[in-house]
Amino acid sequence: MKIDVLLSPIQTDELYFTGKTTVVIDVLRASSTIITALSNGAKEVVPVGTVEFAVKVSGGIFGGQTLLGGERNTKKIEGFALGNSPSEYTKEIVSGKSIVFYSTNGSRAIVKAKYSANLFICSFNNMKSLSDHLKKLNEDVFILCSGNNNFLSLEDSVCAGMLVNELVSYNNQTELTDSSKSAMSLFKSFGKNILKFLSETDHGRLLISNGFESDLKDCAELDSTKVIPFYSGNTLRVLK
Amino acid sequence: MKIDVLLSPIQTDELYFTGKTTVVIDVLRASSTIITALSNGAKEVVPVGTVEFAVKVSGGIFGGQTLLGGERNTKKIEGFALGNSPSEYTKEIVSGKSIVFYSTNGSRAIVKAKYSANLFICSFNNMKSLSDHLKKLNEDVFILCSGNNNFLSLEDSVCAGMLVNELVSYNNQTELTDSSKSAMSLFKSFGKNILKFLSETDHGRLLISNGFESDLKDCAELDSTKVIPFYSGNTLRVLK
Repeated sequence: MKIDVLLSPIQTDELYFTGKTTVVIDVLRASSTIITALSNGAKEVVPVGTVEFAVKVSGGIFGGQTLLGGERNTKKIEGFALGNSPSEYTKEIVSGKSIVFYSTNGSRAIVKAKYSANLFICSFNNMKSLSDHLKKLNEDVFILCSGNNNFLSLEDSVCAGMLVNELVSYNNQTELTDSSKSAMSLFKSFGKNILKFLSETDHGRLLISNGFESDLKDCAELDSTKVIPFYSGNTLRVLK
Repeated sequence: MKIDVLLSPIQTDELYFTGKTTVVIDVLRASSTIITALSNGAKEVVPVGTVEFAVKVSGGIFGGQTLLGGERNTKKIEGFALGNSPSEYTKEIVSGKSIVFYSTNGSRAIVKAKYSANLFICSFNNMKSLSDHLKKLNEDVFILCSGNNNFLSLEDSVCAGMLVNELVSYNNQTELTDSSKSAMSLFKSFGKNILKFLSETDHGRLLISNGFESDLKDCAELDSTKVIPFYSGNTLRVLK
């Protein structure tokens, strides 16, 4: 099993993912939010690459069974029902709903990886469940960190490194690249106290200063759910 | 002093560097080779972004005072006088010469950073000399890793991390980003035995399999010279 990590979607193009098994990570906050929405009974999450397309797909911002969710540069988008805090995506609000979702880095990373044969969403919230599934699948794995506007984001890299570490512990015949070795090393250096290191990252500090401190706590929760979002037919649903 | 690290030139555009103090790193092998060439008395090294431009700038491949040097995907380019092994750039061959230089990642990274106010070249070979100079300069520093065809290269990241570590040890008021923190962490994990870790990187293994094992030894030499290549007027010369 080969494991590679992309530290930002800018490093490659859409066709790179064709036929691959890909895991998209955006710890703060898109992947944590999507996992929470599906855990709380959302029918599906439709990730989109632009705000304009989000509005188009949802059939206007007043749709009934469709909710618009997400953010642009950490802020809720005008006319959207929901922002990008996991805590907004409660059972009461999302159960049975289709959520059209846009975010600055996360949803765009998912859309970029759309040609993957298997496309999963990962955060600390579903780490064990997803790594167990990947062990069974036994395919090469490409972990795509959403990053921070083309730059490395430490929280995505550390989360990717935790996943690499899980897979390596299980199968010591794994083949690692410079990137997957680096991510695993960053996990070992920073991953001991997830909430603490999240609050010291570039994006974590920005979220705190914008009043989203409690989101960090939600995003730091390890294995709070078994839900694995799986992408098929342009939409993310719970993997059965 | 703020220190940022770019893990690949693809993460940004040329204008990003305008007015900045930038350090370009391509340990295997462009920055090590350029430093060696200037240490051995080359008049200047002219980095170019394409092979075609290299030939044009040098006035044809039979130029007298101009030597064409570099590689494409680790291999010497047809018609070029020199490849990208530091050991080729001896006093006898390069003294007094202008070298037009192209390489897959390194020279293109330098060209991308051309609008910098200060642009230096770094490898393990001139680490102390360059870090001492940056301490005196006391400006924000942007370290640009040449990477490996848009992907992270562990050797560039670790070398960047060693430079970050030097600057942080000197001035504990430095402001670090996710990337510079990550690079420093990678240096602490991998930097204890430079030659050993170089030989285990993606690019190191490729060079060994192509017969360039002795280049790794040259590139791993710490502080073998005080020469700092400085970019001005489209050319790299020794900083006086």
